[in-house]
Amino acid sequence: MPKISNKASQMPASPIRKLVPFAEAAKKRGVKIFHLNIGQPDIATPDTFLNAVKNSNIKIVEYSHSAGIESYRKKICGYYKNYNINIDSTEVIITTGGSEAIAIAMMSCFNPGDEIIIPEPFYANYNGFSCASNVIIKPIISSIESGFALPPIEEFEKLITPKTKGIMICNPGNPTGYLYSKSELEGLRDLVKKHDLFFLSDEVYREFCYDGKEYVSVMHLTGIENNVILLDSISKRYSACGARIGALISKNKEIMSAALKFAQARLSPPTFGQIGAEAALDTPPSYFEEVKTEYIARRDFVIEALNKMPGVFCPKPSGAFYCIAKLPVDNSDKFCQWLLEDFNFNNQTVMLAPATGFYSTPGAGIHEVRIAYVLNLSDLKSAMICLQEALNKYPGSTLI
Amino acid sequence: MPKISNKASQMPASPIRKLVPFAEAAKKRGVKIFHLNIGQPDIATPDTFLNAVKNSNIKIVEYSHSAGIESYRKKICGYYKNYNINIDSTEVIITTGGSEAIAIAMMSCFNPGDEIIIPEPFYANYNGFSCASNVIIKPIISSIESGFALPPIEEFEKLITPKTKGIMICNPGNPTGYLYSKSELEGLRDLVKKHDLFFLSDEVYREFCYDGKEYVSVMHLTGIENNVILLDSISKRYSACGARIGALISKNKEIMSAALKFAQARLSPPTFGQIGAEAALDTPPSYFEEVKTEYIARRDFVIEALNKMPGVFCPKPSGAFYCIAKLPVDNSDKFCQWLLEDFNFNNQTVMLAPATGFYSTPGAGIHEVRIAYVLNLSDLKSAMICLQEALNKYPGSTLI
Repeated sequence: MPKISNKASQMPASPIRKLVPFAEAAKKRGVKIFHLNIGQPDIATPDTFLNAVKNSNIKIVEYSHSAGIESYRKKICGYYKNYNINIDSTEVIITTGGSEAIAIAMMSCFNPGDEIIIPEPFYANYNGFSCASNVIIKPIISSIESGFALPPIEEFEKLITPKTKGIMICNPGNPTGYLYSKSELEGLRDLVKKHDLFFLSDEVYREFCYDGKEYVSVMHLTGIENNVILLDSISKRYSACGARIGALISKNKEIMSAALKFAQARLSPPTFGQIGAEAALDTPPSYFEEVKTEYIARRDFVIEALNKMPGVFCPKPSGAFYCIAKLPVDNSDKFCQWLLEDFNFNNQTVMLAPATGFYSTPGAGIHEVRIAYVLNLSDLKSAMICLQEALNKYPGSTLI
Repeated sequence: MPKISNKASQMPASPIRKLVPFAEAAKKRGVKIFHLNIGQPDIATPDTFLNAVKNSNIKIVEYSHSAGIESYRKKICGYYKNYNINIDSTEVIITTGGSEAIAIAMMSCFNPGDEIIIPEPFYANYNGFSCASNVIIKPIISSIESGFALPPIEEFEKLITPKTKGIMICNPGNPTGYLYSKSELEGLRDLVKKHDLFFLSDEVYREFCYDGKEYVSVMHLTGIENNVILLDSISKRYSACGARIGALISKNKEIMSAALKFAQARLSPPTFGQIGAEAALDTPPSYFEEVKTEYIARRDFVIEALNKMPGVFCPKPSGAFYCIAKLPVDNSDKFCQWLLEDFNFNNQTVMLAPATGFYSTPGAGIHEVRIAYVLNLSDLKSAMICLQEALNKYPGSTLI
């Protein structure tokens, strides 16, 4: 039998996926599970999107342009303009989800063995894409005590070697919910400029910024236009994760030309998703206002509930729909498995994401979990009651 | 400005794409172009597919399982059973088009620097995916004189080095339309077994086999079950290229487990495409019979018309909807460009794919073009008249 590739052996399996068999077994036992483990919102996709797909009336589901349907690429520039991101249609390539935008950006920018610095905890799949591109992630820990603020620029500088080719962030952050300030981003800009690095920014949660705090895009930073690559997705914006529509955006013509070659090799992004996404650009502002109001209520409830639990600490995030909580447990991987395998309260339990999967420093996040507040308030209330009960009963509690 | 990756620099640009600006300019001059250059069929997508998407009534476009919607994976096993390919749902991963199946297979099987042997001419994007995975293609020329039959196994054997990790074929073939015989495939099987290689087979045109010739899948070959990976797509089967639904199929559990990790990193294949594809499994046989009858009529017309032209030679393919023709021209890249830039007949011209893009041996295919007979008979007739006129007028004709 031929041997699989080294890359395939090293490819990380998601720590959340490891829990799936335990969740399935719990369901078979009739236990209701509150899924706080994944960023799959329960919010309805806007009618603009769904009706456009329904009424598309195409007779042949043809390839689109490799960079995406031209009318969509043109129209989406207006969307970005509302965020003061000024691009034209040649500066955007529509991708198959944000995932493909990350994969293409990595292949376009980095050679095998190149290093990129990413503040951790970070979106677990960055590990997968860097492994697929043989790129080495140099993590820099942002602490829960600081609410996951950007570590001091000096700490980044310490990690820079001749192999360093880029910096990558997620803003607002998954899994932290942290929203970077203008001055934090300006610090990164100066560093990027000084060392002439690529600056990749995953900003798929820009619709979810709270408390009147300002969303600052890497595209707003001046003087590093050729360094910046914006990675985007409609998955969260329109609650359309399954549409698989994202975007790679840059003013760097060499990068766009390279990215287009990778895009051409895979022919085109999905046609139906693009049809929906283009129409969804006309979604009324009220949709987003309602969604935001809903998420703020959920966040406020969850953060307060968590911090009331003895031994729990959870900083209040200003963006996205995640938070990272520190729990009074010996090991959050074990705790999350125990929740599914050995626990229920009134035949209910919660599924959480162990935070270890979001760190690449071994041992980091061992007491933390990520909670996605993507359920309605009533379910979130039941979920928090379950969690409280579980923490009281868990044999590996560190409270006593 | 930071430097793009070596991979991005080396990534081949499609020779067809290079012609696009000339085609656009011709259109602006009011010239009608018959597009024989790409495999985008003019056949309607079946109603089973389109209606399922229209009537799906989903309220949230959610992520599907990373391996694809479970009911679809189960049901598709019945489709394969009709072709005597016996798999269960754990042996199939639904991919984002056949393209992603190729990309994931390459990443799962091969290390950078590993070599795979591919008979040429081959589907041009294999170059792109091998470049993206740093895999080295060792081409082996199949000649137009033999109708693109498989080269003798001894010729393959000569190319095998300690770096050789796999063999890849497309059957029925794009761009040749050649359908491999059972004995040709058994020859490859023996070779694969002897050297314990991976055997990747792209069989997306299995619905398009003509003249009563037998379709033999790599999945029918016994004794190499752990070596074989079947790469598939619904793009041509249902004329649904833009749905971006394909499949990676193998009995090798290590490969399936590796492939799933790559699939998980990109979350899921497109939801709407899967909904359509699952429903399309119930497309009545009459749809495929009509389509096949249509393609046979087109093929018969095109091949006869081509071989009647002085100096043209085109073997008759038994599958897919392509043929490769040798033309009496100095250079088919130049000729294809000239067709768009300097020629028209009654304000019409044809766009062809220069065959050089389907060879990786430098200079090979310089007198050949690929013709996709994806237009209706009336358009094909006009296109062939255009081509005949063009060959009479082309300054680089080799006839005199």
